[in-house]
Amino acid sequence: MPTVKLIEYEDASPEVKAVYDDIMATRQVDWINNVWKALAVQPAMLKMVWDNVREATKPGAIDAVTKEMIYVAISATNGCEYCINSHTAAARKKGMTDEMHSELLALIGVANQTNALLNALNLEVDKPFLNGGLDSQ
Amino acid sequence: MPTVKLIEYEDASPEVKAVYDDIMATRQVDWINNVWKALAVQPAMLKMVWDNVREATKPGAIDAVTKEMIYVAISATNGCEYCINSHTAAARKKGMTDEMHSELLALIGVANQTNALLNALNLEVDKPFLNGGLDSQ
Amino acid sequence: MPTVKLIEYEDASPEVKAVYDDIMATRQVDWINNVWKALAVQPAMLKMVWDNVREATKPGAIDAVTKEMIYVAISATNGCEYCINSHTAAARKKGMTDEMHSELLALIGVANQTNALLNALNLEVDKPFLNGGLDSQ
Amino acid sequence: MPTVKLIEYEDASPEVKAVYDDIMATRQVDWINNVWKALAVQPAMLKMVWDNVREATKPGAIDAVTKEMIYVAISATNGCEYCINSHTAAARKKGMTDEMHSELLALIGVANQTNALLNALNLEVDKPFLNGGLDSQ
Amino acid sequence: MPTVKLIEYEDASPEVKAVYDDIMATRQVDWINNVWKALAVQPAMLKMVWDNVREATKPGAIDAVTKEMIYVAISATNGCEYCINSHTAAARKKGMTDEMHSELLALIGVANQTNALLNALNLEVDKPFLNGGLDSQ
Amino acid sequence: MPTVKLIEYEDASPEVKAVYDDIMATRQVDWINNVWKALAVQPAMLKMVWDNVREATKPGAIDAVTKEMIYVAISATNGCEYCINSHTAAARKKGMTDEMHSELLALIGVANQTNALLNALNLEVDKPFLNGGLDSQ
Repeated sequence: MPTVKLIEYEDASPEVKAVYDDIMATRQVDWINNVWKALAVQPAMLKMVWDNVREATKPGAIDAVTKEMIYVAISATNGCEYCINSHTAAARKKGMTDEMHSELLALIGVANQTNALLNALNLEVDKPFLNGGLDSQ
Repeated sequence: MPTVKLIEYEDASPEVKAVYDDIMATRQVDWINNVWKALAVQPAMLKMVWDNVREATKPGAIDAVTKEMIYVAISATNGCEYCINSHTAAARKKGMTDEMHSELLALIGVANQTNALLNALNLEVDKPFLNGGLDSQ
Repeated sequence: MPTVKLIEYEDASPEVKAVYDDIMATRQVDWINNVWKALAVQPAMLKMVWDNVREATKPGAIDAVTKEMIYVAISATNGCEYCINSHTAAARKKGMTDEMHSELLALIGVANQTNALLNALNLEVDKPFLNGGLDSQ
Repeated sequence: MPTVKLIEYEDASPEVKAVYDDIMATRQVDWINNVWKALAVQPAMLKMVWDNVREATKPGAIDAVTKEMIYVAISATNGCEYCINSHTAAARKKGMTDEMHSELLALIGVANQTNALLNALNLEVDKPFLNGGLDSQ
Repeated sequence: MPTVKLIEYEDASPEVKAVYDDIMATRQVDWINNVWKALAVQPAMLKMVWDNVREATKPGAIDAVTKEMIYVAISATNGCEYCINSHTAAARKKGMTDEMHSELLALIGVANQTNALLNALNLEVDKPFLNGGLDSQ
Repeated sequence: MPTVKLIEYEDASPEVKAVYDDIMATRQVDWINNVWKALAVQPAMLKMVWDNVREATKPGAIDAVTKEMIYVAISATNGCEYCINSHTAAARKKGMTDEMHSELLALIGVANQTNALLNALNLEVDKPFLNGGLDSQ
């Protein structure tokens, strides 16, 4: 159960309604999910987070389905149950196939495996990898 | 400095050399980076981790550059410095442009922002998102 | 469901009862929440953890409501559902208003956003920030 | 070393310079720290993150020094070295005394201790704590 | 609810059934738990993960019950509810007593406490601890 | 560089010296490592943390070397560099062999792999694992 009161569309201020309308238009759905109803307790926070999410997930140099898969990978690493479900659903809606999901899952496992191992080994970064390889280009 | 002794190619057992050779052939490079030299303290672990990484990062339903970007996203979330540098370098080598990197960075920030916020809000998963949207397809 | 047996007040040893009594007196409540009933499986652990929590959350140079808000921020970052709920409740009881809660939530989001971004960027600490600014004072 | 090229003031576009100027004016300093020089690779991301940070850390219902201490607590939990140093420095500049710092450190330790313990115990949230105590008010 | 379809024994391909049989034989049980039914969506991933887990948890230089307790410690630190329950159950089955469980819990708490504190303090590693003490032996 | 001033033995108050003496006596060494010199900024915190660590790591139902290995596993999962090095050194000193270290590393990798995978799959805990198997005993 949420730690704040959810604000339904009909109870929202015009400021909040404007964000809700933008969410529904952008996503082409006719309902508002719980995140936004909770963030609406502070309209400025609602607008800031929605602006961030809309900009960060819109197709650009990286396509939309890839962005949702990256969101799933981060959410699984953080163990955020709501986020895992909502972004897996969004990835599927935007075209993630079962094969893509399987490969994503395998990668999430292996990346977390090697991240922890590398921490335990405390290795120095190899020269060609320094600066994320910026100097080696 | 590493918490185990690194094993150089010339000091490696035939079993370890076989893995080193496979790593260099797969990546089309002529050197071995520190991770593998450290994991070689236990040849079975070296082989297991390399097999995992090779399979999880090879192009499939998800392409190679996307897989490296997902690896970067997970590594940044876990704060693994070696991993962030090595996989950013790998992503660049496989074709990640500056624009793609910028969008990846923005997404890493926003996903971690909403993950923490959602934890703090303790929301119930909306019905259409349950099962990662599996039932809504 | 808990991974250990909860120990109710009436079934507790005198050693455990003494801690339970101190908890209720300190918090001015007449019931014991699940954490302490679980930790009571090892009376020494119960006492150690309660002593830690009581000392760390008592008003001092930092006031009590601020301490509970810091506890909420850490709990959200770690994704501990029980902790998020119990410390949000404690913060409210000690005077956290809805405005304070909203600002806390926004800050939890932004701090986790920049933490992940900074990891991904692998930046050197600027000189004036070294030692947490101790030398710049 | 950073995984992107840092953009110095003199090399920045007018769009980026405007953000740099706002940062220096807001913080009343005459230099730009590395974070912003790195985020400037994508001016829209620079502006988004700076807007987020400026709004989230400005004094409001929660005062400025408390906000920086909360930032330190989250950064320590995430293990972000740059963030720990920069926000500890900011907290000191805004008035955090040695006593406040000591109490903050003790609390960071204890909150992470109980968070992990509570996870291991898998406890149900007590009724009065549900909804972060919203129903008990 | 799972984000993929679970594959029951009777619906499994021969490849998946072979892994299921190995799991039941290794663990001397007559049922398959949900993890494997979920990973079976990609038989290669199922086999990889099971091979990893079987090898990593088999008795060796470290005994079986200790390995399960280490698994519990990591799972609690990551906040993985399924993992905490399944590995606590496995540890009990392999011989973890209530006393051992209590000591494990206390250690999980204290290690997470000092980990966060040490992050916040940003200390240099003392010389005798460098390389995990490899040079001091 | 540390975010607080380190307090050397010769500059310490009698209260702090007493803890330093207990640390050196318990560990049978003649020097104090950086953690304690940093925590000494608040003598009460120094004593609390040292009491916690001494009690949690002393041999009991779980032996001393196993406790240090569990500490390493948690520290690697949290990515605490100081902690990884100091507890790997302590484990070696207390008898961890290279074989034990290799098995520990493999387990750290695999446990973090399955933790992240299980989060991504959002599975229900199987009945026999509920309560950490407490009811199945």
